[in-house]
Amino acid sequence: MSNITLAEAFGRAVYPLTGHGKRNVQVLKDVLKNVDGDLDSDFYGKGDLISEFETKLAAYLGKESAVFFPSGTMAQQIALRIWCDRKGVARVAYHPLSHLEIHEEDGLKKLHHIEPILLAERDRLIRLEDVVNLQEEISCLLLELPQREIGGQLPAYEELEQISAYCRDKGIRLHLDGARLFEIVPYYGKSAAEICSLFDSVYVSFYKGIGGIAGAILAGSKDFTSESKVWKRRHGGDLISLYPYILSSDYYFEQRVNKMEQYYEEAKELAKLFNGCHAVSTLPAEPVSNMFHAYFAVPKEVVEPILIEVCEETGVGIAAYLAEREGNRCTYEVSIGERYANVPKDRLREAFKLLDEKLKQIGA
Amino acid sequence: MSNITLAEAFGRAVYPLTGHGKRNVQVLKDVLKNVDGDLDSDFYGKGDLISEFETKLAAYLGKESAVFFPSGTMAQQIALRIWCDRKGVARVAYHPLSHLEIHEEDGLKKLHHIEPILLAERDRLIRLEDVVNLQEEISCLLLELPQREIGGQLPAYEELEQISAYCRDKGIRLHLDGARLFEIVPYYGKSAAEICSLFDSVYVSFYKGIGGIAGAILAGSKDFTSESKVWKRRHGGDLISLYPYILSSDYYFEQRVNKMEQYYEEAKELAKLFNGCHAVSTLPAEPVSNMFHAYFAVPKEVVEPILIEVCEETGVGIAAYLAEREGNRCTYEVSIGERYANVPKDRLREAFKLLDEKLKQIGA
Repeated sequence: MSNITLAEAFGRAVYPLTGHGKRNVQVLKDVLKNVDGDLDSDFYGKGDLISEFETKLAAYLGKESAVFFPSGTMAQQIALRIWCDRKGVARVAYHPLSHLEIHEEDGLKKLHHIEPILLAERDRLIRLEDVVNLQEEISCLLLELPQREIGGQLPAYEELEQISAYCRDKGIRLHLDGARLFEIVPYYGKSAAEICSLFDSVYVSFYKGIGGIAGAILAGSKDFTSESKVWKRRHGGDLISLYPYILSSDYYFEQRVNKMEQYYEEAKELAKLFNGCHAVSTLPAEPVSNMFHAYFAVPKEVVEPILIEVCEETGVGIAAYLAEREGNRCTYEVSIGERYANVPKDRLREAFKLLDEKLKQIGA
Repeated sequence: MSNITLAEAFGRAVYPLTGHGKRNVQVLKDVLKNVDGDLDSDFYGKGDLISEFETKLAAYLGKESAVFFPSGTMAQQIALRIWCDRKGVARVAYHPLSHLEIHEEDGLKKLHHIEPILLAERDRLIRLEDVVNLQEEISCLLLELPQREIGGQLPAYEELEQISAYCRDKGIRLHLDGARLFEIVPYYGKSAAEICSLFDSVYVSFYKGIGGIAGAILAGSKDFTSESKVWKRRHGGDLISLYPYILSSDYYFEQRVNKMEQYYEEAKELAKLFNGCHAVSTLPAEPVSNMFHAYFAVPKEVVEPILIEVCEETGVGIAAYLAEREGNRCTYEVSIGERYANVPKDRLREAFKLLDEKLKQIGA
């Protein structure tokens, strides 16, 4: 048995399956290669460099205006704060596994004193009836598309339209956590602007499917984004220069936004390979974007050495980590990017054949 | 009379007097030239790239621990919040022209519900007696060294020691707004660590005298900085990658932190030239750092064309802007950086001779 960790094995894999590539300084160097050194920095949210990208993304998202933020954490808290202030109701609703609830150290509560109502059970999507059955008044409903923590699931588009219509009717603002919005465009078969037209405000990220360094866009009406700039200053996010993030967001957006269909098809192919293995399944069973979660019905300490062996014997890096789940299971998140297309198909089949055999051998 | 603006004239000047250089993408390109593309990004505040810089700055500032932040606005609000939470008193004191009071859209009040007591009049430094005479209990006193908005003034070091001793005695935390801390080390003749030893927490910036792209360090005890990381996440400042700012902070810190003595001497030389001109004075009369404010006892609309003419006739860019002040005066901020040393002395004298003559001619 090997002495290296799963992360180390994945790091050395000739054919890692997930992601665009290593998160190293080369990612920025590639961006700057063709940028003229004379290009002026943005300056506290102003200047051509930032405003041109904001205008471009506003158009892409079909919104009147857009603001570049250093992070989605900042952008989304601010969006919810604005909607709460306008209605005078400091209450919103979102999924129990929303980024705001589990990854932000309760910033929304501690900084903005907004109370979230957790809608739906943790293991399923928010449905129209959850919204209709809300007992308390809310200012805003946040929907995350796709719902990342349950493998990246999506409601039917018709249900989305129904939720949107219901919220408009009831004076509830609808905010899109579109951290992975670009990634779901192929499945819905709608443009980003069409999807966003169902929402009052939209956040998108540039370091998930796009693979930039960091950064986010918050889009909506002009009065909404103007107000968001004041809060951006308050949060300490109105930096004198955000251009390293803006330039990289733009560069990788141009490179990859039209490859989401390819990533989506590849995710479906890979999910099939997983689902063909003994004791392995994916969530969702068929992906609706470039992402899904792979579940092993075997404990982490059993799967880890198997994945390391498969990696060392075939060069194929399946996972960089495993997270324990109840019922002696383990899981990890698959996110398809540039790397997948570089994996020779015979290697891929060989790796999954070996994985299947090894899982059978241990009597899983 | 010329048709260009003062900013345009300054932008074209062969010999601009202030700053390090243009804020353009070259500033980042220069940083990356010698960085290996294989260097791993920081990852949500972790990894060698960020922790090594934090450790280095903690040592430089003589503090147990340090945390890199995207901005000082974020770092300082968080520092004050921590001190207020610990004491259970949501009240702090700072100068009426503190950055928190005039440049942050009331983030401290709107996000943290902390009440600031404005100590001292706007046109002078906070003195020991102001602190002693405080009527209300405060958790923290913030001192900005140098006090930027009044030209970058400093208290005597002995008074600083007295304020520090008083605060320790009374259980008041002392926080240093050291946006320009590196710049005052030569005047005090103390190390940064010696100065910081008078304070419980310290913020320093990397895009003032250091001339980086953006970024800040917050330093203090280990328990303080650990708590600050939780708030950094809440503020949306715990980015997946901060390395463009960290690498540039480190690069320009190494290049310039030991040039502050030179900038300080140059600021004194330049202030003398201003003070030798008709109707011009500087605040302070003799600078105590690389900065000062130049005041013209003449309205902005009169001075602007003169500065443009001087620039066009001599190539020396004195100011990029002018701000109106009461009493028909105008002013701008001088901050000495790399550029000043490149100005030939005869050109400099010629420019100020011309400025003096023109100010006399208009009967100022």
